[in-house]
Amino acid sequence: MFDLFGCNFDQLENTDYIIEMLEKLVEILDATIISKAFHKFHPQGLSVALIISESHVTIHTWPEDNYVGIDIFTCSKSFDSDKVVAYLKENLIFEKIEMKEILRGQIC
Amino acid sequence: MFDLFGCNFDQLENTDYIIEMLEKLVEILDATIISKAFHKFHPQGLSVALIISESHVTIHTWPEDNYVGIDIFTCSKSFDSDKVVAYLKENLIFEKIEMKEILRGQIC
Repeated sequence: MFDLFGCNFDQLENTDYIIEMLEKLVEILDATIISKAFHKFHPQGLSVALIISESHVTIHTWPEDNYVGIDIFTCSKSFDSDKVVAYLKENLIFEKIEMKEILRGQIC
Repeated sequence: MFDLFGCNFDQLENTDYIIEMLEKLVEILDATIISKAFHKFHPQGLSVALIISESHVTIHTWPEDNYVGIDIFTCSKSFDSDKVVAYLKENLIFEKIEMKEILRGQIC
């Protein structure tokens, strides 16, 4: 899970850009999008959930707080969090990123 | 996040039951489902992502390992994990449950 602080309000409010960014992130993970749900909140905020071949990727934006929360739930053995951080730095404007890696079920 | 071990294969393979169980869980949380994505894997496994008014609820099942991973990402101040555990115990067959509570962004 990745928490991004000091994000750019206008970038976060660009729904098409954020969804496309997340879809490209799935490519970076060498995964495949199987199903998608999203909602644009008013006056601001966006939630996207992508079910992928290896579980899910979600994003929630709080533009008014310049905050973004991204979750990647994956059973891929080749998951590389550094690659994700590098991708986010290239594609999102923010001041600080915090990452937490949580081991789940230990079955995959 | 909730990890359930020793689950029942047949119950996990009942797609309608699992989706309905998750939707009722959202009611227990006093939240509202805004958007839904799901996929039934073959030969087994199910992934569901519900975008709710307060963020998201996801489930991934691995019936072959009798394992289920449930994530609740919420900015609700009234979130009660004991209520969730009680609900899961009533509605899913499993031997062991592990819960992890992770504080995110600290903005809501």
